[in-house]
Amino acid sequence: MILRDPVHGLIAFESAESAIVERLLDTEEVQRLRRIRQLGFTSLAYPGAEHTRFAHALGTAHVMLRLTHRLRDIQHGLPQEHWLTPDRVSDALAAALLHDLGHGPLSHMFEDALPGSDHHEVWTSRILLDPDTQVHRVLSSHDPGMPDRVAALIAGRHPLTYLSRAVSGTYDVDRCDYLLRDAHATGVRYGHFDLDWFHRSLRFGPLPADGSPPPLAIDGAKGIAAIESFVLARLFMFQQVYFHKATRAAEWMVRTALSRAVRLIADGTRLPGTPGAVASSAAGRTPSLGEYLELDDGVLANTLHRWESSPDRSLADLCARLRSRHLFKTIELHGESAASPQRQALALQTARDITSANGLDPDVFVGLDFATDTPFHDHKDTLVVAFDHGTTRRPAEVSFLLGRLDGHALTRVRLIVAPEVREQIVEALGS
Amino acid sequence: MILRDPVHGLIAFESAESAIVERLLDTEEVQRLRRIRQLGFTSLAYPGAEHTRFAHALGTAHVMLRLTHRLRDIQHGLPQEHWLTPDRVSDALAAALLHDLGHGPLSHMFEDALPGSDHHEVWTSRILLDPDTQVHRVLSSHDPGMPDRVAALIAGRHPLTYLSRAVSGTYDVDRCDYLLRDAHATGVRYGHFDLDWFHRSLRFGPLPADGSPPPLAIDGAKGIAAIESFVLARLFMFQQVYFHKATRAAEWMVRTALSRAVRLIADGTRLPGTPGAVASSAAGRTPSLGEYLELDDGVLANTLHRWESSPDRSLADLCARLRSRHLFKTIELHGESAASPQRQALALQTARDITSANGLDPDVFVGLDFATDTPFHDHKDTLVVAFDHGTTRRPAEVSFLLGRLDGHALTRVRLIVAPEVREQIVEALGS
Amino acid sequence: MILRDPVHGLIAFESAESAIVERLLDTEEVQRLRRIRQLGFTSLAYPGAEHTRFAHALGTAHVMLRLTHRLRDIQHGLPQEHWLTPDRVSDALAAALLHDLGHGPLSHMFEDALPGSDHHEVWTSRILLDPDTQVHRVLSSHDPGMPDRVAALIAGRHPLTYLSRAVSGTYDVDRCDYLLRDAHATGVRYGHFDLDWFHRSLRFGPLPADGSPPPLAIDGAKGIAAIESFVLARLFMFQQVYFHKATRAAEWMVRTALSRAVRLIADGTRLPGTPGAVASSAAGRTPSLGEYLELDDGVLANTLHRWESSPDRSLADLCARLRSRHLFKTIELHGESAASPQRQALALQTARDITSANGLDPDVFVGLDFATDTPFHDHKDTLVVAFDHGTTRRPAEVSFLLGRLDGHALTRVRLIVAPEVREQIVEALGS
Amino acid sequence: MILRDPVHGLIAFESAESAIVERLLDTEEVQRLRRIRQLGFTSLAYPGAEHTRFAHALGTAHVMLRLTHRLRDIQHGLPQEHWLTPDRVSDALAAALLHDLGHGPLSHMFEDALPGSDHHEVWTSRILLDPDTQVHRVLSSHDPGMPDRVAALIAGRHPLTYLSRAVSGTYDVDRCDYLLRDAHATGVRYGHFDLDWFHRSLRFGPLPADGSPPPLAIDGAKGIAAIESFVLARLFMFQQVYFHKATRAAEWMVRTALSRAVRLIADGTRLPGTPGAVASSAAGRTPSLGEYLELDDGVLANTLHRWESSPDRSLADLCARLRSRHLFKTIELHGESAASPQRQALALQTARDITSANGLDPDVFVGLDFATDTPFHDHKDTLVVAFDHGTTRRPAEVSFLLGRLDGHALTRVRLIVAPEVREQIVEALGS
Repeated sequence: MILRDPVHGLIAFESAESAIVERLLDTEEVQRLRRIRQLGFTSLAYPGAEHTRFAHALGTAHVMLRLTHRLRDIQHGLPQEHWLTPDRVSDALAAALLHDLGHGPLSHMFEDALPGSDHHEVWTSRILLDPDTQVHRVLSSHDPGMPDRVAALIAGRHPLTYLSRAVSGTYDVDRCDYLLRDAHATGVRYGHFDLDWFHRSLRFGPLPADGSPPPLAIDGAKGIAAIESFVLARLFMFQQVYFHKATRAAEWMVRTALSRAVRLIADGTRLPGTPGAVASSAAGRTPSLGEYLELDDGVLANTLHRWESSPDRSLADLCARLRSRHLFKTIELHGESAASPQRQALALQTARDITSANGLDPDVFVGLDFATDTPFHDHKDTLVVAFDHGTTRRPAEVSFLLGRLDGHALTRVRLIVAPEVREQIVEALGS
Repeated sequence: MILRDPVHGLIAFESAESAIVERLLDTEEVQRLRRIRQLGFTSLAYPGAEHTRFAHALGTAHVMLRLTHRLRDIQHGLPQEHWLTPDRVSDALAAALLHDLGHGPLSHMFEDALPGSDHHEVWTSRILLDPDTQVHRVLSSHDPGMPDRVAALIAGRHPLTYLSRAVSGTYDVDRCDYLLRDAHATGVRYGHFDLDWFHRSLRFGPLPADGSPPPLAIDGAKGIAAIESFVLARLFMFQQVYFHKATRAAEWMVRTALSRAVRLIADGTRLPGTPGAVASSAAGRTPSLGEYLELDDGVLANTLHRWESSPDRSLADLCARLRSRHLFKTIELHGESAASPQRQALALQTARDITSANGLDPDVFVGLDFATDTPFHDHKDTLVVAFDHGTTRRPAEVSFLLGRLDGHALTRVRLIVAPEVREQIVEALGS
Repeated sequence: MILRDPVHGLIAFESAESAIVERLLDTEEVQRLRRIRQLGFTSLAYPGAEHTRFAHALGTAHVMLRLTHRLRDIQHGLPQEHWLTPDRVSDALAAALLHDLGHGPLSHMFEDALPGSDHHEVWTSRILLDPDTQVHRVLSSHDPGMPDRVAALIAGRHPLTYLSRAVSGTYDVDRCDYLLRDAHATGVRYGHFDLDWFHRSLRFGPLPADGSPPPLAIDGAKGIAAIESFVLARLFMFQQVYFHKATRAAEWMVRTALSRAVRLIADGTRLPGTPGAVASSAAGRTPSLGEYLELDDGVLANTLHRWESSPDRSLADLCARLRSRHLFKTIELHGESAASPQRQALALQTARDITSANGLDPDVFVGLDFATDTPFHDHKDTLVVAFDHGTTRRPAEVSFLLGRLDGHALTRVRLIVAPEVREQIVEALGS
Repeated sequence: MILRDPVHGLIAFESAESAIVERLLDTEEVQRLRRIRQLGFTSLAYPGAEHTRFAHALGTAHVMLRLTHRLRDIQHGLPQEHWLTPDRVSDALAAALLHDLGHGPLSHMFEDALPGSDHHEVWTSRILLDPDTQVHRVLSSHDPGMPDRVAALIAGRHPLTYLSRAVSGTYDVDRCDYLLRDAHATGVRYGHFDLDWFHRSLRFGPLPADGSPPPLAIDGAKGIAAIESFVLARLFMFQQVYFHKATRAAEWMVRTALSRAVRLIADGTRLPGTPGAVASSAAGRTPSLGEYLELDDGVLANTLHRWESSPDRSLADLCARLRSRHLFKTIELHGESAASPQRQALALQTARDITSANGLDPDVFVGLDFATDTPFHDHKDTLVVAFDHGTTRRPAEVSFLLGRLDGHALTRVRLIVAPEVREQIVEALGS
């Protein structure tokens, strides 16, 4: 199988070890990822950001394939039990392809909005292990132990710790693909890093005394810039894209609409067009796997569109604004106002009061949005830096840049408000 | 207004003349283009091709803005009546933004599949001129004559012929954007050309004796390569993308599903989930504007998904294959078999017979697909090449490459067949 | 060894087979290529074109390394005697790195200008085979037969014909690198093609009945676009860069200066600053290898600078113009005037007469420049196109584009004249 | 005039105001910059880095042209006396083109190595103001006051402070071009920033009360990322390229060779091939302008090549190593050893002792190299950040990243040693 990819150029799975990828691509659970955009509502701010989780899944498997090539080039010095066997390569490729299988549309939102909802990781595992899914059947026909092994690998459990960290860790194949892909699709030019150079800079660190596999390390002479630029690319993407005010506002609106719908249904209101998964949630049941897999961006959009005719005015209003892209506005809190929970609560209360005074439900038309990420945290599970004479050091010690970023959190605190009350709130807050 | 675009980098409409663009973007008819992918089913073959008509519309307006900058840089030698006034610039930007407004999902398909259906150009004009659309209201509030002028400009009627050809012609702003955008999204590297250089190479040709505005010309010393690479980019995109066998097969399947559904409905079958526009069509009525505007990719996908439970087995089968991406296969006819209609008909008949013999309906499970385009045709309405001493020549005379392509058609003739009968048909055809 | 390269990103020779490359890089004959620009005087027209033959040599070895990876991926179906052994890989890498070793500054010019001068291919072979060169010593210390084998491979003689064509043929590694590198350095955007895709599209053609190795072929489904774009990239580079009028004029001036200097020296004039190789040539002797290797761009520039003070006014004038970049102008002949040798001769005579009448030596201040290349010629030694069922066809049969280019020559015929007589000649020629 | 540039795509000076650029390009002093590489010996480490100061000068003028377009787009709110008049634009373009005119080959090296040598800025000014240079004549024929005005602008003196800072300041047009150009030529992918976005983010800050022109500011909503990535691009280029160990070692060797040659000449040794400028320097005289302008990379290379036959063994040895690229090695000092001058001196003494003990002159074969730069220093002359409501803040306050970098110096301290003593020194230093 060989494909054009706008990010990696050419994606090919031609070896026997990688044949599993092509078989998995044909399953309906993987095909479903075509119907879920990687970045949810981000295309409201960046019109190019329409790329899907399917393209990302494929790209992640491709990055894993390239990584396994590199690992094999450098594994010769290791005891053979730490080598990548063909089976381990197949497992790694499947894990990379399937790592996001359980995502729903706007998944974090669903998880937050629906009472008792499970995290997407749980759904991923459920899909892998359920004997009725096509994915399960493909994996187990390849090797009966494969569904369990792949689920474990995605969950971070694997005898080769360097492999499980490559699936899920600071510099994992997931991030390698999504940083490049999101940058490509949004047009944000700062989100690039040099994947070739990064892979080429990988070494194995010293063998632990207890016989466990060695950690991956970055070459001290060549590799620092590769991880610096990886960390910076991620930081820029958070600043420019993932924390973008329009996206955050839209996500907040959807989350609010979902919560409200669930409460309305629980209270006995009939909302035609509600998907089974949401209805189950409202009834206090975990959605069935079938219900969950029905969910995708189209179903969500359709649902919101149907709810525009709901009898609940607030819900109908929210949904209509989303469709016509008349989003809520944000008011960013800076300095002290952002740092203290008391000051945040005070600002929110002011905003709620003004919203109420304008005849709008403050539970629907105003909220507080808190976004945070630590761009670099030099803890023991990340890559170490290896030097020629066998010494290793931590990235934060060696890198001018990472030393200055280590442990610092990037935070954005914002009020999210209906446009019609924005000016009054800004004035009242004196900011 | 300033936006990141993955193709052009930065899109900004900051001048008074371009303020109309931002107002039009807020209308629901333009926002609807977010829900229609530019390349329909192409993402089945190129997973990155999820970009929308909305992003393309924005990019087209951007190319027009840059073109108007160039035109103003070079218009000083012309009589003032041929200059671009601010009003003409606003009209041109609106026309560029709105040129595809009437597209439905997979629009050519709809037009072909639905009896008596209007072309997307008709719908574009209808949306512009209907006093109830938001687009109409924005345009006429700007200037009451604007809806008519913009509709005329899109239709190719304008006193400045060089401007109407820039909206719709061999090297129009539409193509300038879509070639670059489709190449970016698919990852096909051959689809690029140098837009900067192309614009910078534009000149005005000699003034006609009858007082009409001069044609645009390309500079003889610098510009040939620009139009050569434009023509080649388009040729490559046709060969690699627009005529791709998987896309053509998928489109054929949807068209067949739509036709069949229309016939079933006309015959009295009830098909739940059928959108109003399709129902009207089946009833022999032109869909209302409201019905038409409800159509988008999500609605179409939803419809096909619903039809999977239709009582008509062929329709249900087609729809299920589309969702799970189990597409029909193609068998390309070469040489003589492709060139003669008799040979084509014979091949189709062979395929139909085999299909029937396998218990499949030949109207549904086999078809002939004919795709053709002439990459370069040097007719009088395309750009001429202007030389220093005032002489002009035709591109085909001056360009080694275009001289060799002029008037030649690129054609692909294929049978489209269900996978289960492919091998038998290939054998029977001996190809 | 691992290096940053602006064209290929990352160049690494880390395997045992490729260790020879690093050792060869350290020789003075390879280091000398740092002092010779790849495109001679092209930087007068394209200020970025300062890249050296050294960077190109390195890039060519890199392309060969990637090609050998691909060849090994696809050689499994062949009889083992046709496989790439480690020794053959080392030979191929050395041949790629060293293929241009014998180039002097503006080499074709030297060959034309100096009486009895040898071609650069001869010098390459001489350097490889001379036991006193560092290159020879490195090769023979690796394996005593290596200098001969590498020289033979560069000259196109090798048991694996597919390998010798990869060193020197229509799609050889030399072209693969220089097209991309020249495009990168000049900024000409049309000169790109997709090297990854090209390599990935390679197959082995059918095994000949006589037991000789199979030819390389391109995959019929995926590879046509790769070779089309290769051919077009080359065509564009010829049109835009290699046949650029300023470069051709500058080269003509240097050639004329060299010829004149040689004649002056032969006639007994003393020209201080003349390099030994030129002096030997003037005395009717083949330069020694030592003399030849002293030549580089700096030496040539220095020589021309010294000759500015030569007693011969024409020589001094030519050299002064070159240094201050006051180049001769070109007058292109079109149509009939370009096609017939008689018409060309007539035009040249007219130009010579006018030049003389202006008191300028017509042997120095006017000339005829004839540049030609056939972009695509579908002869038996180029790649064939291989289809799934074992059939092969010629590219010109399969490709819409190549079919139209096959065998056609691109030609530019120009008078090269001193600027002060240009207008008079243009008028006299009526063009 | 219109040119292809590999960095900016297309460089055009077509307006009346920019005609001065084309005239200046034809002068011999500007053409001389073709013979001086931008990055000196960097091509030893990055084979692509052969780009010249000429290409950089042209690119800098192009960036200035684009900047003046932006400034004119945003100057409408200012008092007219602060506007860019056509004359000021011409001055700015000339200043941008000529800002590096006084550079010699490896200029900082020359300045350090030659006793009493003037800085390149002094030479630039001298060339502009000397009535016998072609550059002076072109400028003064355009306007007699122009040479003085351009010299003042380059020196940072101009009534429009925002313009003089654009010529020479934290984000000046010089840096804008060289960062992109050096990244392009070396292939270092981290050195890019988004010039378009940077220019588009520029605003004028608030008008000072004293009537002086306003400073430039960056838009608070859109521009932070632009200057962050500018600062980071510069930081990466310092880390990866400008402080590269091979370049630093080569520069140190040339500097040592020059100093030694000067001392030898001063002591009466005859060194054939020594350029006039070096001879004058050795004799305690400031070189004449003519002597200075004769210097270029070719002359320097030729000189070093001639000195290979010098009677002084150390000088001959250094020059031979440079030509064959057998560079000295570096030993980086870390932590305490790097931070304290005493520890540095101790390390150097150890190295000198070992070098002497090996029979090598410690003044020639060992040295201490100290490289430092402060990537971001938020002082009052850099850009401020302007917000919608007229408030301004310092970048370090607003930017997560710049706040963490502000004022911190990046430093590399290295011993530079002959390869034959490296291991002994490393052992002795215990590092």
